[in-house]
Amino acid sequence: MPKVVNLESKFTSFSDYWNPRIIGKLNGQHVKIARLKGEFVMHTHEEDELFMVINGRLKIELQEDSITLSEGEMVVIPAGTPHKPIAKEEVKVLLFESASTVNTGDQPESDLTKLDLEEI
Amino acid sequence: MPKVVNLESKFTSFSDYWNPRIIGKLNGQHVKIARLKGEFVMHTHEEDELFMVINGRLKIELQEDSITLSEGEMVVIPAGTPHKPIAKEEVKVLLFESASTVNTGDQPESDLTKLDLEEI
Repeated sequence: MPKVVNLESKFTSFSDYWNPRIIGKLNGQHVKIARLKGEFVMHTHEEDELFMVINGRLKIELQEDSITLSEGEMVVIPAGTPHKPIAKEEVKVLLFESASTVNTGDQPESDLTKLDLEEI
Repeated sequence: MPKVVNLESKFTSFSDYWNPRIIGKLNGQHVKIARLKGEFVMHTHEEDELFMVINGRLKIELQEDSITLSEGEMVVIPAGTPHKPIAKEEVKVLLFESASTVNTGDQPESDLTKLDLEEI
């Protein structure tokens, strides 16, 4: 039977930052949630990526501009668009993206890179 | 520049039921929102479909069982799974599904069928 997923319960099951967990899979896409705090790295994906803020305030720097998402707001970052998420305070975010998308995109693999995401 | 979408503002822009609007497109998928009230029709899609309840309480009848989603809960209905959404009171829902998915799935076209969704 299809499994009901409670977002808040899933968030309480982990506390680390910049380490997305998979909470749903459909049509070759993954639904992920993550806690963000601090500055990530500017990077680009070959696929589109959706950010939806569940709690907090997320700034996303683009090449010449920036956008800010508050709770209940979302944005689609198109494939090929350099972006850098920044969370001054902790942000809870939901991501919709291709199953193949890696968090650091085109950047060299680093401590920030998460390749084998946990499914919770 | 990528457009910030405020879910609540989008919901206030329409009031009819069972008529999803597109609020985002990515990777061949559509993000839609809809207001639901009453009983829909049992139907099946060839693609997976995600329901996320933004407000209210949504029952989804399956063939031999049913699930209920409250605010902040989501479910993926796998391709080929007959399902019938029922909203006793009004429910605001977010859908994530293939761009090709039609709301009434395999059912004969009817007044319930929405083919050319508005993008808001």
